[in-house]
Amino acid sequence: MNKINKILIANRGEISLRVMRTAREMGIQTVAVYSEADRNSLHVRYADEAVCLGPPPSAQSYLLGDKIISLCKEMGVDAIHPGYGFLSENAGFAQKVSEAGLIFIGPSPQAIEIMGNKLAAKQAVSKYNIPMVPGTEEAITDIAEAKKTAAAIGYPILIKASAGGGGKGMRIVENEEEFEEQMQRAISEAVSAFGDGAVFIEKYITSPRHIEIQVLGDQHGNIVHLFERECSVQRRHQKVIEEAPSSVITEEKRNEMGQAAIAVAKACNYYGAGTVEFIVDENLDFYFLEMNTRLQVEHPVTEMITGKDLVMEQILIAEGKPLSFRQEDLHIHGHSVEVRVYAEDPRNNFLPDIGKLITYQRPQGPGIRVDDGFEENMDIPIYYDPMIAKLVTHAETRQSAIDRMVRAINDYRITGIETTLPFCKFVLKHDAFVKGDFDTKFVEKYFTPDMLDEAFSADELHILAAAGVFLSETNNPKSKQVESMEYKATTNWTKRLNNG
Amino acid sequence: MNKINKILIANRGEISLRVMRTAREMGIQTVAVYSEADRNSLHVRYADEAVCLGPPPSAQSYLLGDKIISLCKEMGVDAIHPGYGFLSENAGFAQKVSEAGLIFIGPSPQAIEIMGNKLAAKQAVSKYNIPMVPGTEEAITDIAEAKKTAAAIGYPILIKASAGGGGKGMRIVENEEEFEEQMQRAISEAVSAFGDGAVFIEKYITSPRHIEIQVLGDQHGNIVHLFERECSVQRRHQKVIEEAPSSVITEEKRNEMGQAAIAVAKACNYYGAGTVEFIVDENLDFYFLEMNTRLQVEHPVTEMITGKDLVMEQILIAEGKPLSFRQEDLHIHGHSVEVRVYAEDPRNNFLPDIGKLITYQRPQGPGIRVDDGFEENMDIPIYYDPMIAKLVTHAETRQSAIDRMVRAINDYRITGIETTLPFCKFVLKHDAFVKGDFDTKFVEKYFTPDMLDEAFSADELHILAAAGVFLSETNNPKSKQVESMEYKATTNWTKRLNNG
Repeated sequence: MNKINKILIANRGEISLRVMRTAREMGIQTVAVYSEADRNSLHVRYADEAVCLGPPPSAQSYLLGDKIISLCKEMGVDAIHPGYGFLSENAGFAQKVSEAGLIFIGPSPQAIEIMGNKLAAKQAVSKYNIPMVPGTEEAITDIAEAKKTAAAIGYPILIKASAGGGGKGMRIVENEEEFEEQMQRAISEAVSAFGDGAVFIEKYITSPRHIEIQVLGDQHGNIVHLFERECSVQRRHQKVIEEAPSSVITEEKRNEMGQAAIAVAKACNYYGAGTVEFIVDENLDFYFLEMNTRLQVEHPVTEMITGKDLVMEQILIAEGKPLSFRQEDLHIHGHSVEVRVYAEDPRNNFLPDIGKLITYQRPQGPGIRVDDGFEENMDIPIYYDPMIAKLVTHAETRQSAIDRMVRAINDYRITGIETTLPFCKFVLKHDAFVKGDFDTKFVEKYFTPDMLDEAFSADELHILAAAGVFLSETNNPKSKQVESMEYKATTNWTKRLNNG
Repeated sequence: MNKINKILIANRGEISLRVMRTAREMGIQTVAVYSEADRNSLHVRYADEAVCLGPPPSAQSYLLGDKIISLCKEMGVDAIHPGYGFLSENAGFAQKVSEAGLIFIGPSPQAIEIMGNKLAAKQAVSKYNIPMVPGTEEAITDIAEAKKTAAAIGYPILIKASAGGGGKGMRIVENEEEFEEQMQRAISEAVSAFGDGAVFIEKYITSPRHIEIQVLGDQHGNIVHLFERECSVQRRHQKVIEEAPSSVITEEKRNEMGQAAIAVAKACNYYGAGTVEFIVDENLDFYFLEMNTRLQVEHPVTEMITGKDLVMEQILIAEGKPLSFRQEDLHIHGHSVEVRVYAEDPRNNFLPDIGKLITYQRPQGPGIRVDDGFEENMDIPIYYDPMIAKLVTHAETRQSAIDRMVRAINDYRITGIETTLPFCKFVLKHDAFVKGDFDTKFVEKYFTPDMLDEAFSADELHILAAAGVFLSETNNPKSKQVESMEYKATTNWTKRLNNG
């Protein structure tokens, strides 16, 4: 058992603050690191001590593993929390941390290594009977053989270039009749793009959902799962709305997926917090995708429904303590939704919209949590992921958690930049989302930017009220009511013109 | 079933906002009322519509029941939520609301009437076998008879003037030997103070705890309890720290108290949210004190541990819906603590410290909720209760909820006025509180203002960091560390001088 007294958080922004808050509650001292671009950041101010690593970009600051390790030794730090991104899934860094006699708050370097490599991961889990997307194990070029394989997998199938990327050499084949033609096209595309005609064939999942299982393991071989997170709503292939539990997963399926996730974790002797990602098809059959060997951005929804503080658990595990609970002690309480508030313009293909937060007022009240790293008048730096905040709600039922989120989005006051909030509200009010009938293609299927104006108009009265539209006074409430309504209507109109 | 579409909240500040947030989540329109002193308040800005009632004090604004009712009719309001205080326990107002064809979001006027009168309440619950503090039913003057009664009750006993108040004519008698003398003194004090020598005798509870049970009843006769709240930590006989569950109540005792509370509610055909207050002695014997026929200030701790939104339940009940859950569906999840942040100076006998909130930054992060009605640069009005905010934490265990609260208090940035925050932190870190070994006399027993400086010093580094003490940069982290520490030490010293 190694009691941790001082943690350096090798990260920035909201996740750095998130970790420091729990550390402080545990009586642990905190050290922040920062780049010159983040000098005035909240995570720097919040820490007990803070050290500048260098200028942006990250290669000259947040990714300087050796510098971070030597700082730890000079400053009497005994553990490093890597957050997510940056050095969090760098096995070499984890190894060096350990060799320097420091505690890496995360899994072993070996586990990071294995799960960071698709082939190694596949091999590691092979004896655990984990469902994988059916397909060829090795790249092929023989069309006749490929056709047999495709028939065995069952249509539709996906052909993808072995050397591929960016969708080049990728073909969806609906049925056997069109197989040969599509295969030839895929091969010739692959040859011209990569100089290599070898392709893989795998089952094509028409309506894929991204559902992941949170696991926690200690250093004594105990592993539990903390149920699933549904992360299917994505834009630019990145998650933007997450929830727990999923609206489609049954108790039986939850247990199956949980057991599969635990098996994946066992396959690499996992300890710490980790996430096993699955693709789930329309029949709720699930297939192992990958394991993320770190804390996820969307971990708060799991905290809300389980009551567990995942960062506290990470720290206790890193100290060598056994898990203080068993699988049967874990239960789902209510429902939680998270929306990621990005400085992006949903009307302009979600391009980053960097600038100053002229107004920044967080929503308040029961069942609302905001994890962020900004305050009013701060600039969103151009060097990093433009996430401003994670807005999380918790309520008894899924519908109440959604209603609460819509209310919270209406109450969130951000001016100076465009954000993903109006897009998130559009999704939350969309029938397909409300019914739980969606997949990773939600944006392609349902969203066009002009829908945002519609989604907003119904709630504009609330937004304006929250923005501080003061009502003038008269002694006749009726006349005041009419007056204020007119004022609001005018303001709406102006607003829409500006947005147009 | 009467669907509510528009609610007027006949209140101000945090509770008005609290009710509006839930109303909005339920798709219900909101109307705020305000006094001229509250014109710029957040509850006015947040509402869909807002009407000024008149100048302070409350008799000319918030207490104008008839005006509020006629506003409702003019503005198409169908229900009134009274919050707490003001008109919330005014049976006559509830009656008029109902006669005007409006819905009063609360119990029947009859229930308010009965529970608002100590004798009527006692009579109503008499056939339900609710434990009461043992004592004489009627005032007595005969010393010999009184002595017999005292012996039957068991010492220590309390003698109090029938016409009394303010402690006059009140005597604690430890044993039979001193009874006659004390009784004579009490009678003569009562005669000289009130012109009436009649006294009551009751059991004196040496170490009383204030523990209350939350109940919810619908209009179809279903009543459940939502467990207890411990409210023993008080200053000036007013609650300042509350928690749920209590650290001393066993599962068996919880069930007993819950059943007693349900019986009290049944005794007045209660519906809506209500609270049954008990005094609990050192043997955990409990005695009925009174029933509050409204939402309590401290209701959030119950929401945190049960996952129920009490305001939503109030509204559903007022619409005539049956409760959607039974007693056996309710469970306690984790532990919740609330501290009341008052604009009061704990170094100066908790006198109100009215002024401007020059800095006002709320704590953030997992398991933290702030219910308030203020923002930076607002003035605390002199006309009302000087509560700025309710700071609530929720965590898995009592100790984590306390640790989280200490962290949250350290992160709360309020300047311009003194608040109860340092006092609350003193209590939360006090051994007696941590062990759960305390009663309503905590402040008298343990607190003197000079203890605040001590309680603060250990955490000053955090506070200063949170306040934005920037660290200067050098390329040698070690020298920076020393430099910043020195800077902090100097600042602490200045701070303490200012506080002294």
